[in-house]
Amino acid sequence: MLKINTNRKRLNIFINKIKKSSSWQGCVVLSAILLLSSSYAVYAQDTPSDLTAITSELRVGLDTLWVVLASVLVILMNAGFAMLETGFCRRKNAVNMLSKNLIVFAVSTIAFWVLGFGLMFGDGNGIIGLQGFFLNGADNSPAVDDAYRGVYSALSWAGVPLSAKFLFQVAFAGTAATIVSGAVAERIKFIDFVLFSVFLVAIPYPIIGHWVWGGGWLAQMGFQDFAGSTVVHSVGGWCALTGAIILGPRMGKYPAGGGIMPLPGHNLSIATLGCFILWIGWFGFNPGSTMAVNEDIAYIAVVTNLAAASGAITATISSWILAGKPDLSLTINGILSGLVAITAGCSMVSYSSAILIGALAGILVVFAVYFLDSLKIDDPVGAISVHLVNGVWGTIAVGLFADALITGDDNISGLFSSGNFNLLGSQLLGIITIGITMIVFSFLFWNILKVTLGLRVSQEEEYLGLDIGEHGMEAYSGFLELEGEMGSIDGR
Amino acid sequence: MLKINTNRKRLNIFINKIKKSSSWQGCVVLSAILLLSSSYAVYAQDTPSDLTAITSELRVGLDTLWVVLASVLVILMNAGFAMLETGFCRRKNAVNMLSKNLIVFAVSTIAFWVLGFGLMFGDGNGIIGLQGFFLNGADNSPAVDDAYRGVYSALSWAGVPLSAKFLFQVAFAGTAATIVSGAVAERIKFIDFVLFSVFLVAIPYPIIGHWVWGGGWLAQMGFQDFAGSTVVHSVGGWCALTGAIILGPRMGKYPAGGGIMPLPGHNLSIATLGCFILWIGWFGFNPGSTMAVNEDIAYIAVVTNLAAASGAITATISSWILAGKPDLSLTINGILSGLVAITAGCSMVSYSSAILIGALAGILVVFAVYFLDSLKIDDPVGAISVHLVNGVWGTIAVGLFADALITGDDNISGLFSSGNFNLLGSQLLGIITIGITMIVFSFLFWNILKVTLGLRVSQEEEYLGLDIGEHGMEAYSGFLELEGEMGSIDGR
Amino acid sequence: MLKINTNRKRLNIFINKIKKSSSWQGCVVLSAILLLSSSYAVYAQDTPSDLTAITSELRVGLDTLWVVLASVLVILMNAGFAMLETGFCRRKNAVNMLSKNLIVFAVSTIAFWVLGFGLMFGDGNGIIGLQGFFLNGADNSPAVDDAYRGVYSALSWAGVPLSAKFLFQVAFAGTAATIVSGAVAERIKFIDFVLFSVFLVAIPYPIIGHWVWGGGWLAQMGFQDFAGSTVVHSVGGWCALTGAIILGPRMGKYPAGGGIMPLPGHNLSIATLGCFILWIGWFGFNPGSTMAVNEDIAYIAVVTNLAAASGAITATISSWILAGKPDLSLTINGILSGLVAITAGCSMVSYSSAILIGALAGILVVFAVYFLDSLKIDDPVGAISVHLVNGVWGTIAVGLFADALITGDDNISGLFSSGNFNLLGSQLLGIITIGITMIVFSFLFWNILKVTLGLRVSQEEEYLGLDIGEHGMEAYSGFLELEGEMGSIDGR
Repeated sequence: MLKINTNRKRLNIFINKIKKSSSWQGCVVLSAILLLSSSYAVYAQDTPSDLTAITSELRVGLDTLWVVLASVLVILMNAGFAMLETGFCRRKNAVNMLSKNLIVFAVSTIAFWVLGFGLMFGDGNGIIGLQGFFLNGADNSPAVDDAYRGVYSALSWAGVPLSAKFLFQVAFAGTAATIVSGAVAERIKFIDFVLFSVFLVAIPYPIIGHWVWGGGWLAQMGFQDFAGSTVVHSVGGWCALTGAIILGPRMGKYPAGGGIMPLPGHNLSIATLGCFILWIGWFGFNPGSTMAVNEDIAYIAVVTNLAAASGAITATISSWILAGKPDLSLTINGILSGLVAITAGCSMVSYSSAILIGALAGILVVFAVYFLDSLKIDDPVGAISVHLVNGVWGTIAVGLFADALITGDDNISGLFSSGNFNLLGSQLLGIITIGITMIVFSFLFWNILKVTLGLRVSQEEEYLGLDIGEHGMEAYSGFLELEGEMGSIDGR
Repeated sequence: MLKINTNRKRLNIFINKIKKSSSWQGCVVLSAILLLSSSYAVYAQDTPSDLTAITSELRVGLDTLWVVLASVLVILMNAGFAMLETGFCRRKNAVNMLSKNLIVFAVSTIAFWVLGFGLMFGDGNGIIGLQGFFLNGADNSPAVDDAYRGVYSALSWAGVPLSAKFLFQVAFAGTAATIVSGAVAERIKFIDFVLFSVFLVAIPYPIIGHWVWGGGWLAQMGFQDFAGSTVVHSVGGWCALTGAIILGPRMGKYPAGGGIMPLPGHNLSIATLGCFILWIGWFGFNPGSTMAVNEDIAYIAVVTNLAAASGAITATISSWILAGKPDLSLTINGILSGLVAITAGCSMVSYSSAILIGALAGILVVFAVYFLDSLKIDDPVGAISVHLVNGVWGTIAVGLFADALITGDDNISGLFSSGNFNLLGSQLLGIITIGITMIVFSFLFWNILKVTLGLRVSQEEEYLGLDIGEHGMEAYSGFLELEGEMGSIDGR
Repeated sequence: MLKINTNRKRLNIFINKIKKSSSWQGCVVLSAILLLSSSYAVYAQDTPSDLTAITSELRVGLDTLWVVLASVLVILMNAGFAMLETGFCRRKNAVNMLSKNLIVFAVSTIAFWVLGFGLMFGDGNGIIGLQGFFLNGADNSPAVDDAYRGVYSALSWAGVPLSAKFLFQVAFAGTAATIVSGAVAERIKFIDFVLFSVFLVAIPYPIIGHWVWGGGWLAQMGFQDFAGSTVVHSVGGWCALTGAIILGPRMGKYPAGGGIMPLPGHNLSIATLGCFILWIGWFGFNPGSTMAVNEDIAYIAVVTNLAAASGAITATISSWILAGKPDLSLTINGILSGLVAITAGCSMVSYSSAILIGALAGILVVFAVYFLDSLKIDDPVGAISVHLVNGVWGTIAVGLFADALITGDDNISGLFSSGNFNLLGSQLLGIITIGITMIVFSFLFWNILKVTLGLRVSQEEEYLGLDIGEHGMEAYSGFLELEGEMGSIDGR
């Protein structure tokens, strides 16, 4: 069924060629013959110079298509987070969770367009970008490297138009903000979460991003984070941690008499759907970070999938051993942990290393959940255990497992491949400095919000649910609530 | 990790070249050397003529891949509409909403294959296409423009095979039908909705489409609608409006004593999921309308996303101001309104204009919802406010904001860029003539159905729910309904 | 907006060319002029040999991108199966269904990486592959055909890297295992299902796959199954059948007094969503099986969609006639049946044949559901009727409808096109031998599990629900259950 065509572009080039060609007569004769012999195709004999232009255009087109589609997959992750977090929370707070997850990508889009993208990728110094706000800077993308002329030099390696670069990066920025949502769930005021998201995406996220992906000082120190275990996941995770601490636990979670009261999620069907959607979205998140089509995209996809699979298995087994039965919410968080942990190194490690990284992530998340509970840090969806703990683990793992045979660069080689601690040292430096920075930034802004607007809803509102209190509506009209749900002593 | 290969096609061409080449001996020697020096690659030196054919094939392949994937994203919107509309309706009508949304794409597919595609894109006159039914017309796609030989001349600009063109267009056709579903929800007979969908996709939708995208009279008048604010959304919206009026409001919605009774949706989790899915699907809907891979696809995607984001924000703020609290269902409809409004002009406006268009859409939808309620036009999901009102607004916006710098065509330039009313005039002409036509068409067919089959279910069936009445089943077996739900005076 | 660029690769080649070129002086002069005349583009005049390498690389990139994205669509089907099966089961077993569907792709990934891929595509004999376990075999993909050097010869026709081949195939393997899950639902122990999945993906699925797609004996006999009506769907279906028989029906399904007790699904919203997701996923499953971008991908997508649409319509009408009302669950299963039935022949039949194949599938599934119930084989979600019955039907249909005009091969031509029974005979041979093999394999392994671990949960656990029994949690905390749900005599 395959027919060869001459498309519009081709035809124009053909016509131009005829006009310009010094031997156009021969070309016309040849073409006429071909035209007569077939109504399906016009074969012109392009000059090598024409063909160079055509293949360049195809290369840009192929890479642009991939970046756009990868961006769509990452934006889809917003749906995944919304379903996951909402399902893990209680029915009375569902509208609030849904609203937060819906509005967060909207405000992130605008905040990153106005300020974030310029701070992250605009030319500036090693600490911060200082140009290119409102996506308005000079730029001749898709020209690359030495041919690039513009203010977003840090992205000049990617041979796609500026709009494609922005689309992919704004999708990432939205993810960082979404991570926070789950940890502060069921007690934070809607307006505070929205403002914090704007702040995070406008200022600290892009500054950290500049250090690592914007040609900043950590990049120059050799810190490696391919798709964002640190830049996205632990940055969101640190904010989640400080937020959960400052807010304090939900009413009834840690009763005065001791022990931990389970406050089970209201809809594990949509939570599981959310996990599947996130798994799918990660095939944009990790392979898409190439911003170019090459064989690596398939390799990274397989590595990513192996880590998710092994995280699922070890988390399930861990919960089976510890609690006697396989816990669905830990299977879900095991998958996500495997995905978060492989994000930094997905382009640098072998298949077996990926399985090992994911397997350890699946175990780590189970213990982190227990550990945070023992500290009375209340994280309703496990966001800190998934994104912070395994964001850190994945970044360390690069320092251990990065393989010079795969990276093709002797300087990007972890302890087990190089035998030295150089890369591991850079990784730890990045983890620590970014951690401290994000704790300071987020602690400050949470407290500004606390002082000005108040962070936490009233006890009565928390008891009755944020859906009524913050939004004046409920998520599941027509379904009778569990008797005593509202009036129970544990605040459910 | 990158290795260069010779794939099958290349190998065949290589072999053919050897057979035909006048200097094949040299070529074979060269190839043999290359083969021996590397087991990974065979480099043949193709002639420029071979390379012209190869690059043409790559261009067609790249564009075909994009059109197929964009079609998949648009088809995914059916899932979005299903979840959105079902979630916004009451529990007792969920099976009915799901059934309608599932069957509608099935019947649309067949109806558009039999009749619609030929009427829309088949050669004919300025009013209607008259050839190419059953996808059976002559066609040498992916040949384009002057090289095209076939009966679907209106699509000859797209360098992809006919099957790809059909796939994308059938996905669009299904969307128009789906829009109607929400406005007539909770009271229309299942069979009537199915028959109306068949009719809409088979006859009026493709006729309007022919005027605008099929080379018809409106296209010749300069009317611009890049991805269908009018052709898809307001066409569906007009049918929704006439349907809602002819059916009348749901029992209890506007009580005799005055006021408006809220009949809240039963599942805002799936409604929100539906909104996310639609947002994602729009990345196929708008950028896919290029039907070719070029830099515009990334630009259009960013423009689309900015409009959605600003629609979300202004609708949320509007509802916050008007009702005192941010209403999730208006955030959802704000996003959709931004998307609908940017659809016509997504390839023609600047980033800032996109934000403005979306922002106004988000405000418009809130007031439209109130306004329709004041007219006692009962639209359970807000379909008229989203698709009709903002379909019209988006089409007008092209006449205001289209920028010659972006369109590259001084004739496609709105008031603020050109300073004249030419384009705005064409846009208003299109809006009005299409509006009148669709009102006539849909009014007629709704009434034919009313007279022959009866449009509305019985009062008793409406009271008990269409799930039992129309389908003999319920959606949520095992969940206790709200006490008094069935027996309440407002018909909930 | 289109600008032409020189990307990194191009620049390197350009630089190399200058270094090596015998006439590099002229080239440099030309390039310098171009560079000066435009800051956007560097046009170097590549030699035909350079261009051959560049176009080869673009071809590999384009195909790799498609295979990766098609794989993502197939992996998304796991979400579809999870929602479909969970929604069709009762509330008290939802966590169990979700857990099964989540863990199954994880264990499939690991099992197929360790053993399955080597057995299926590794070089060996006509019965089984014997090399390439752990994805560790020699391989110079994307080199193809005669240029291929490696142990996965059966996939040497695909010009993509090995990781892309694995990603697509592991997605398929997971699907086969998922099919079983629905038929054994609501009564099988969690551990048994997990172990059976590991076994299926590790051993029998890849062996059957080797016969058909791995260059094995059935491929040599001319058996045709383009995307897996038999290899995936009926292989899963046979295991579903034996599992359902060995387990026996759910408590209360076939009461002692006769008749059939409907045990309705608890959430048709997510079941319908699952159907939509599966429909979408099939656009990766069928067109993706080309493993290359060509015009076939659009053709196959249209054929697939037509079959799904006609299956939806005939199943809905059949249920309307038989039961008096259109049954949503049969509309869903009609769509899936159309999709399963077209899978084998999607690249070989005409549009009209596709509609016919889908239409018959939609009728078949309705009668199969009734027939299995009459045999007291209890399949809670209809998996056997969808995947086994229509997997067989679709495979037979190839023997009837395959059209030499479409396949381009006189040997791949069904009864109605060729007038002879050759292809039909091969198809029946494959169906029968694979059926017997899978019955034996699955019967054996189900019985090993039964003897060692016990297959079925206790009566009490089944009565109370597997969510509490197997996982110690429930899916919908905060929703009051239907009164008497737990205590009803039919075990609901």
